[in-house]
Amino acid sequence: MRTVYHEQLAELADQLGRLCGVTAVAMQRATHALLRADDTAAEEVINDHDQVVALRKHAEENAFALVALQQPVAGELRRIVGSIQIAADLDRMGALAVHVAKIVRRRLPNHVLPNEVEHHFAEMGRVAVELARCAQEVLMTRNADKAAYIRQQDDEMDELHRQLLTTLMDRDWKHGVPAAVDIALLGRFYERFADHAVEIGRRVVFEATGAVLPEQEIGTY
Amino acid sequence: MRTVYHEQLAELADQLGRLCGVTAVAMQRATHALLRADDTAAEEVINDHDQVVALRKHAEENAFALVALQQPVAGELRRIVGSIQIAADLDRMGALAVHVAKIVRRRLPNHVLPNEVEHHFAEMGRVAVELARCAQEVLMTRNADKAAYIRQQDDEMDELHRQLLTTLMDRDWKHGVPAAVDIALLGRFYERFADHAVEIGRRVVFEATGAVLPEQEIGTY
Repeated sequence: MRTVYHEQLAELADQLGRLCGVTAVAMQRATHALLRADDTAAEEVINDHDQVVALRKHAEENAFALVALQQPVAGELRRIVGSIQIAADLDRMGALAVHVAKIVRRRLPNHVLPNEVEHHFAEMGRVAVELARCAQEVLMTRNADKAAYIRQQDDEMDELHRQLLTTLMDRDWKHGVPAAVDIALLGRFYERFADHAVEIGRRVVFEATGAVLPEQEIGTY
Repeated sequence: MRTVYHEQLAELADQLGRLCGVTAVAMQRATHALLRADDTAAEEVINDHDQVVALRKHAEENAFALVALQQPVAGELRRIVGSIQIAADLDRMGALAVHVAKIVRRRLPNHVLPNEVEHHFAEMGRVAVELARCAQEVLMTRNADKAAYIRQQDDEMDELHRQLLTTLMDRDWKHGVPAAVDIALLGRFYERFADHAVEIGRRVVFEATGAVLPEQEIGTY
């Protein structure tokens, strides 16, 4: 029999899943804005961030209410407190999409990206959104295999990020310093977005299985 | 009369304060390594990060034990769960010092910084360490005025960061793209370090007074 308590737990998982879906949409839209120099899309990402902040607060409040009223023990307590930390990761993912959108807007009507790295960011965007979608599924199903898949995808993101920096550092780079600075920071935003998705997967698996996954390595950048 | 519970709460605050002190030392040393191209200092920052990770885990475990065993209500629950989030911010501050140290090591025996921006990073380093020291004091004394001072200092960091980007984007920049990319990322690491210190102050004040401080703005970068 499902108790009210278990319904509240399921509702909390659901809220986090929805919030994760919102960050996936934000990053997809931010990437579109970046690739097309699309002001409307960039503005939407920035304006919609309020929704992320509100959903995060709501999830946090529910988590606190669950701990205070239900006094859960051991594993369930970790899971509920973990939800608060996951909500913080998701908020940050949303903020990183906003960072991308803000760089797009500052360079309008110009494009931030020279042709040479457009494909690169299309790929980073694709991987970032896929990671957020996987994290969403992990949150809603607690599927540990999917969390392992997130780590693989993150390796792909790290590789894309490394290649990007190599391109920027190359003597043949012809697009000047301001473009390189923008692109270095953009690369960092995508990479951090991915790191937060990995962290969410790691946390859910830890809570579900008690297995301690290896810490995220601190990358070179 | 102080109960065991209150002693445990005080011990938790103390642990976070110590951890914050460790991150201040890490950023001080990383800045020294950056300004002097000092391999030994950079290596120390990287190796000592284990200490940050261990202290964070220890604080987290103590916080969980407090919630599970003492079943605190309302305000105290928020404070204890807040400690777990603060420990995560501190872990991240340590990781950002490691990022600085890693950039230093990759360019050795060369200096990362052209003379032109050395003073700039000396200042950013000074403000970052001061912010961490303030956050440490806030954690140990719960002094709300000091938390407001953190926000002021953070404004100074944001201003330094803006100036740095202006310098990089200037047509007169003579040090090439690779140096600009390194410096843009370094600037970001100092700015994020400061943001985490502000977040700690914000959280402590919220827990101490119930006042909701304004959300951190999402900066342009």
